Amino acid sequence: MKLLTGTRAGDATPSVFSVSGDTATLLSENAGDLSALIADIAEGGALPQPAAGAVTVPVADITPALPVARPGKIVCLGLNYAEHAREGGYEVPDYPAMFLRAATSMIPANAPMILPLASQTFDYETELMVVIGKGGRHISEAEALNHVFGYTTFNDGSVREYQRKTHQWTAGKNFDGTGALGPVVVTPDEVPAGAHGLAISTRLNGRVLQNSNTSDMIFPVARTIAIVSEIMTLEPGDMIAFGTPPGVGHARKPQVWMKAGDVVEVEIESIGICRNPIIAEADLGAQGAAAE
Amino acid sequence: MKLLTGTRAGDATPSVFSVSGDTATLLSENAGDLSALIADIAEGGALPQPAAGAVTVPVADITPALPVARPGKIVCLGLNYAEHAREGGYEVPDYPAMFLRAATSMIPANAPMILPLASQTFDYETELMVVIGKGGRHISEAEALNHVFGYTTFNDGSVREYQRKTHQWTAGKNFDGTGALGPVVVTPDEVPAGAHGLAISTRLNGRVLQNSNTSDMIFPVARTIAIVSEIMTLEPGDMIAFGTPPGVGHARKPQVWMKAGDVVEVEIESIGICRNPIIAEADLGAQGAAAE
Repeated sequence: MKLLTGTRAGDATPSVFSVSGDTATLLSENAGDLSALIADIAEGGALPQPAAGAVTVPVADITPALPVARPGKIVCLGLNYAEHAREGGYEVPDYPAMFLRAATSMIPANAPMILPLASQTFDYETELMVVIGKGGRHISEAEALNHVFGYTTFNDGSVREYQRKTHQWTAGKNFDGTGALGPVVVTPDEVPAGAHGLAISTRLNGRVLQNSNTSDMIFPVARTIAIVSEIMTLEPGDMIAFGTPPGVGHARKPQVWMKAGDVVEVEIESIGICRNPIIAEADLGAQGAAAE
Repeated sequence: MKLLTGTRAGDATPSVFSVSGDTATLLSENAGDLSALIADIAEGGALPQPAAGAVTVPVADITPALPVARPGKIVCLGLNYAEHAREGGYEVPDYPAMFLRAATSMIPANAPMILPLASQTFDYETELMVVIGKGGRHISEAEALNHVFGYTTFNDGSVREYQRKTHQWTAGKNFDGTGALGPVVVTPDEVPAGAHGLAISTRLNGRVLQNSNTSDMIFPVARTIAIVSEIMTLEPGDMIAFGTPPGVGHARKPQVWMKAGDVVEVEIESIGICRNPIIAEADLGAQGAAAE
């Protein structure tokens, strides 16, 4: 099932829809996000099916919302494609480099990604994102895929100047409105085990800038869940991002940065396209300038 | 005011108490944590005072709980004391190295800190922790201290082997049950502006291993809030940890690691002592071994 969280015109609270082609069928009205559904399935429940005669609307009429509004944690892998590690001047790792993103950095598909006032070095990174279903600690690699609720598409928007101000990447990975997610979360039955072997690509204003395959990930889904859960308890709704393939803007000659007015699309085969316009923070007006 | 969140014998939900000396006076029964109080004050409310005739109990009868059970984010600074940067082989930074901790890594004072199965290289780090009150973005240094709800004591327990498996520290900073916080949050009126000039120290089984002063912090409170909020919106209940002074275990000769049965105390003058026993994950029994 392809699950879309979003609002129709006039909705105050997002609902959850099941998407088939261009049609979205109401699955859980005013649910807010997938959290209740994920918790239910984590406790052994079955994925609900739309009721007979459920409301259907065109997908285009739905404004996507975050699939999980406030995940407990968002664990991100860096350098998970060998060629991307090399293009950034790093060695190919034998253990995943991890960082965390805060919820304040995340926006849904279609919403504007925010080029910050602080720096023009705003880069795209297409990534596979796993949404955890059943939680756990010390999850074995053999059991790991049973802990996946679903897969979605992530643009790990990165402010390179801040990412590299120190050896810790966290600052450059946590600007408000730089991480774009969705729009749909697809359940594991829709894709190969571990979302292996899927084409993954980025287009900036239609120009293809990343074009790779999830089979090139150094740390695939099951192994990564085992590695991360050796450290920390994974909880329902937690997310793990799987790093980006080669072709990022800062490694290009000349470098390519996302500018206000651009449109970036990150796509994973069988999962979806996360499309976002870029807006300058300066153009957000009163909202963005809200200091104290 | 010194605010203690915790349970009395038989309590299902933590209450908030005001502490004076050895006595705790009930301030907000079954509040769970300080979140509601912080939100209220962030919106301009005044700090409540205990009701006339409010219940009082000995502080010793209260089991501390986390002051904020699920902070939106926990931003941690590394290398914020010059001597600690040097002892770890790092240059003294001109911009703060940041990482995030997930809520799953955090425990209150008195609870056991968990020496993980994965590694014996478990180290202490005494740190000042700020709890954000009023949120904001692009908070100026001049206004920053108006965004502080309070100060508490933090032991940024670190699994050094995992912290240094890659150049990103996140893995070693996020093991379950390694970050100890509290027990009290003191409001800004209890300490000098920015909690400047306070003695900060660590004792492991009574042996003094860190002994410094918050005036040695490279990035003090106000400046750090300005730097962090340039990147991300700070929300009420968010936390910022201010790095540790020199004297950590991994830089000692011979190295000092926290072992099962040890008791670690981290103390900041006028704020409090966070005391925790160390327990081996292997001794947690079924709870800790809970895989899927």
